[in-house]
Amino acid sequence: MCGIVGYIGTCQAAPVLLDGLSKLEYRGYDSAGIAVYDGNKIQMQKAMGRLKVLEEMTQNGATLPGTVGIGHTRWATHGAPSDLNAHPHFNKDHSIVVVHNGIIENYLKLKKKLMSKGYEFLSETDTEVIAHMLDYYYNGDPLATITKVMHRMEGSYALGILFRDYPDEVYAVRKDSPLIVGTSKSGNLIASDVPAVLKYTRDVYFLENEEIVKLTRDGLHFYNIDEEELEKEATHIDWDMNAAEKGGYEHFMLKEMHEQPKAVKDTLTPRIKNGDVVIEELGMTDEEIRAIRKIFIVACGSAYHTGVTSKYIFEKLARIPVEVDLASEFRYRDPILPENTLVVIVSQSGETADTLAALRLAKEKGVRTLGIVNVVGSSIAREADNVMYTWAGPEIAVATTKAYSTQLIAQYLLAMKFAKVRGTVSQNDFDAMIQSLERLPEQISLLLSHKENVQRFANRYLAAEHVFFIGRGIDYAISMEGSLKLKEISYIHSEAYAAGELKHGTISLIEDGRLVVAVLTQPELYKKTISNIQEVKTRGAFVMAVTTVGNTEVEKVADYVVYLPETNPIFANSLAIIPLQLFGYYVSIGRGLDVDKPRNLAKSVTVE
Amino acid sequence: MCGIVGYIGTCQAAPVLLDGLSKLEYRGYDSAGIAVYDGNKIQMQKAMGRLKVLEEMTQNGATLPGTVGIGHTRWATHGAPSDLNAHPHFNKDHSIVVVHNGIIENYLKLKKKLMSKGYEFLSETDTEVIAHMLDYYYNGDPLATITKVMHRMEGSYALGILFRDYPDEVYAVRKDSPLIVGTSKSGNLIASDVPAVLKYTRDVYFLENEEIVKLTRDGLHFYNIDEEELEKEATHIDWDMNAAEKGGYEHFMLKEMHEQPKAVKDTLTPRIKNGDVVIEELGMTDEEIRAIRKIFIVACGSAYHTGVTSKYIFEKLARIPVEVDLASEFRYRDPILPENTLVVIVSQSGETADTLAALRLAKEKGVRTLGIVNVVGSSIAREADNVMYTWAGPEIAVATTKAYSTQLIAQYLLAMKFAKVRGTVSQNDFDAMIQSLERLPEQISLLLSHKENVQRFANRYLAAEHVFFIGRGIDYAISMEGSLKLKEISYIHSEAYAAGELKHGTISLIEDGRLVVAVLTQPELYKKTISNIQEVKTRGAFVMAVTTVGNTEVEKVADYVVYLPETNPIFANSLAIIPLQLFGYYVSIGRGLDVDKPRNLAKSVTVE
Repeated sequence: MCGIVGYIGTCQAAPVLLDGLSKLEYRGYDSAGIAVYDGNKIQMQKAMGRLKVLEEMTQNGATLPGTVGIGHTRWATHGAPSDLNAHPHFNKDHSIVVVHNGIIENYLKLKKKLMSKGYEFLSETDTEVIAHMLDYYYNGDPLATITKVMHRMEGSYALGILFRDYPDEVYAVRKDSPLIVGTSKSGNLIASDVPAVLKYTRDVYFLENEEIVKLTRDGLHFYNIDEEELEKEATHIDWDMNAAEKGGYEHFMLKEMHEQPKAVKDTLTPRIKNGDVVIEELGMTDEEIRAIRKIFIVACGSAYHTGVTSKYIFEKLARIPVEVDLASEFRYRDPILPENTLVVIVSQSGETADTLAALRLAKEKGVRTLGIVNVVGSSIAREADNVMYTWAGPEIAVATTKAYSTQLIAQYLLAMKFAKVRGTVSQNDFDAMIQSLERLPEQISLLLSHKENVQRFANRYLAAEHVFFIGRGIDYAISMEGSLKLKEISYIHSEAYAAGELKHGTISLIEDGRLVVAVLTQPELYKKTISNIQEVKTRGAFVMAVTTVGNTEVEKVADYVVYLPETNPIFANSLAIIPLQLFGYYVSIGRGLDVDKPRNLAKSVTVE
Repeated sequence: MCGIVGYIGTCQAAPVLLDGLSKLEYRGYDSAGIAVYDGNKIQMQKAMGRLKVLEEMTQNGATLPGTVGIGHTRWATHGAPSDLNAHPHFNKDHSIVVVHNGIIENYLKLKKKLMSKGYEFLSETDTEVIAHMLDYYYNGDPLATITKVMHRMEGSYALGILFRDYPDEVYAVRKDSPLIVGTSKSGNLIASDVPAVLKYTRDVYFLENEEIVKLTRDGLHFYNIDEEELEKEATHIDWDMNAAEKGGYEHFMLKEMHEQPKAVKDTLTPRIKNGDVVIEELGMTDEEIRAIRKIFIVACGSAYHTGVTSKYIFEKLARIPVEVDLASEFRYRDPILPENTLVVIVSQSGETADTLAALRLAKEKGVRTLGIVNVVGSSIAREADNVMYTWAGPEIAVATTKAYSTQLIAQYLLAMKFAKVRGTVSQNDFDAMIQSLERLPEQISLLLSHKENVQRFANRYLAAEHVFFIGRGIDYAISMEGSLKLKEISYIHSEAYAAGELKHGTISLIEDGRLVVAVLTQPELYKKTISNIQEVKTRGAFVMAVTTVGNTEVEKVADYVVYLPETNPIFANSLAIIPLQLFGYYVSIGRGLDVDKPRNLAKSVTVE
């Protein structure tokens, strides 16, 4: 996920571009850059770090003359954050410059071909391939060149392009990455998202897949991939700026919950090839995988809960003992790390202080480490022996949703890979799991589409002071995350319990009207958890149950039931967590709290 | 722990004895028996099970004629509960009969000697040794015989004795086990505790160590071990019956907290011999101990918390990986149990349903099992491959205190034994640990003696709705138990957190005046936890800290500090838990709750 902008008009371009990028920083912020054309020369400035570094470097754009330009704010995917990897990217003679949001999946193949033609690459990005491809196919006709390149690229892209030969034109095109076009009296704009243009106009065009736009100072021309000109209608935006930045969602958390189907798909799809799980970045031979005798999963907060989940899955599928540990505990308890141990470190930011320290400890002890990280080029990503990225994109809300969901996916894939290599899973079961995994994104979408039901229920519990979440096995892990989600944003004291353990003390807190959320996704444990629901019902609890469709038995004991689509029970967390995220969210906003920035909490905990 | 009674007077003895025993059932209830002398023959009735079995069997005593008798209610120590092991015990020709509360430590040696003299033993008890010893040394003079036997016994005892030759006398003696004598118009009585006699008299004599009493129908004669007659003064009891049963304590929980020094000592002392840890009942050769590759500790509730503690200790001392699991989770998650795994099952009652099922699962899987159990002859005690008993005596209060403390001790000893055999601990360190262990009982007494301070503090927090306990490492394990103790009896929603983890969500619940209890007993983690205290202080928390004497640094950040005597940090739980038990207790009674029987909870959870 990145943000791109472009401008052509009567004003100086650089300040407009920087302002637009500032509205897109939620899409990425590890580096930024702009390229401005003054009719004479295309000048570029790029800088690693937040946008303000670039703003200072260019004196808020004042140092770059010209009224035509493109800009980019980056969320690293290919290549760590650096000045060189920042966009824009030039072709060799600086006659073409491009900014890109998306991932070119066949970039390695294309790069190889271009290198064989003598092209040299300055960066590690997939984007630089586009600049050189445009150069390679350029025949004096920008539109024809662009469509030729489009036919050769696989993946997703929204591009902004300048050609030195055409000082009064900006080109843009998109496929599977968003792009909008804004038109105003002082000029025309492109951007990844509406907020970047709202200062100048409320009339925007939404580019469809494989549509191309040519912007001039006073006009817009739309084309399809066959270079036929199109008529498009403008949409008038009546959101306010704040809502617009959130893609029309009221809060980042809600937006990010809705990004989960895509984030899950992005994390999953590149690693499923011909029905097999392929994790190139794992860097382990089958021999090495077979030699592993123990796995530690070390993390904090929600990432720790994904570890609790995957302990069940790893042990069940691959029969490798797994120990899950809080990073703040692991690092100080002199853990026993024999040879053939793998330490898996899970962190969204890749900068969590305790988690990073745990990684360093493991490395010191000489055991192999694998990071599961969302932020490319982060400390954990750099220092772990190998890194498996979650492709969730930037997460702004403090309460994690899409990063959590993608961490689960990465660990499912890892467990399946290990099971396959170690021969502890049958081909039939494996195939069925792949199918289950591939259905998850649409199943998550389905659950999100029922959000109003959860909201209605949540509204009844705005005044709750205590909530208990119960479940057994994986359902206990789900309960932990469901409880944390509610707790951190609603300030309600919620607590998760292994359902069978409640009676060893905590059941004394159950009284009339107390809300208990029960999770039942594991068919072999349904009956046991239903008994536990009965125990709390007898003491007056009000029970919300989250269970798999068909388990209607639950209705006899629970007061409110959320049904989940059918999946392999080992993947149930990916579905069950959705209504629990929604529940936390709606309770928080119902209580009038700042859901995206709960008190006392920081997004990335870089202190102990 | 057992209860004994004796009576001589003008009424039928059996109903008096049964009534007295009913008041002593808190001291044990696995079997009971009485012996009554009608001047012709000493008749005995014994039955396994609660007292009511014996009552039914004897038609409330009606079937046993005679106005002289002794009785016993048992809490098994040597030999499982059974009709044969129940007291009283006869000599071979039934001319002497004895009931006993206590443990004869040298009974095996004495038994061997008696067997060499042709004595046959019907039971597995240490008590039967006393009956045969009295027989062996009997010279027609009961007093002289008793003192002779006293000189030969090591250990603790309170005895009630009848001699067929003396139909109008009852003898009793005590050392390190309690015994009182009551006098009334209708007869004289002995009992382990005051409540057993309160129905008949409020005038009682407290027997001192090694004092002997002879009861006749109308008189009492006291002697010392040199057979010199003593003058003793009666004490008038003005407690009510209810308080008396609790030994003058307001509640069983308070009484049991105060029994911890003794319970700890009883569990510890027999297993420390010549500076070494000797656990005969372990049943493992050094070879077998060295072969262990993994330990599971499986339990519920507070017993689970002792497992969390001993994971740290086992891994540190013996470098064996330990996995602690809730029994309700372990039994359903198909745990990986390779060869050379030891499964340690911890349960006070030995009947906890989930724990018992976990034991059975482990046995099914063919791994070695060790029970750490308080109730002799309980299901877990019978079914585990080996059993290490905690000698806490019967625990009546639902919230465990002394059983918890003895479970810790058993696990300390086990870890030290393993470390010694595996050569992972130096002799010096080992010796120092033994010394630290031996100091624990008096250190616990010291902490209990400061209970009023904790009470004063607790009284300020009676209205609390949320409390958080934080700690790192072993201090986290202590926090878990401290939190449960408060929660289960005060119904305050308290929750324990690894101190470093609080900031990953739960810190959003910290607000002005919120009570946070911080535990700091591990010197290498002091600084880290102090930082976490600062984090919650900044958000307005009120902080009670429990730390080791000398760590005055804490006073700069905490509002109220409880200091613990110095011990080896691995044993810190045994001390730190005392003020936390007291805190829970005083909050509960301050809130006017039924501290011994909190709502919804049962002492022994025999359902899933």
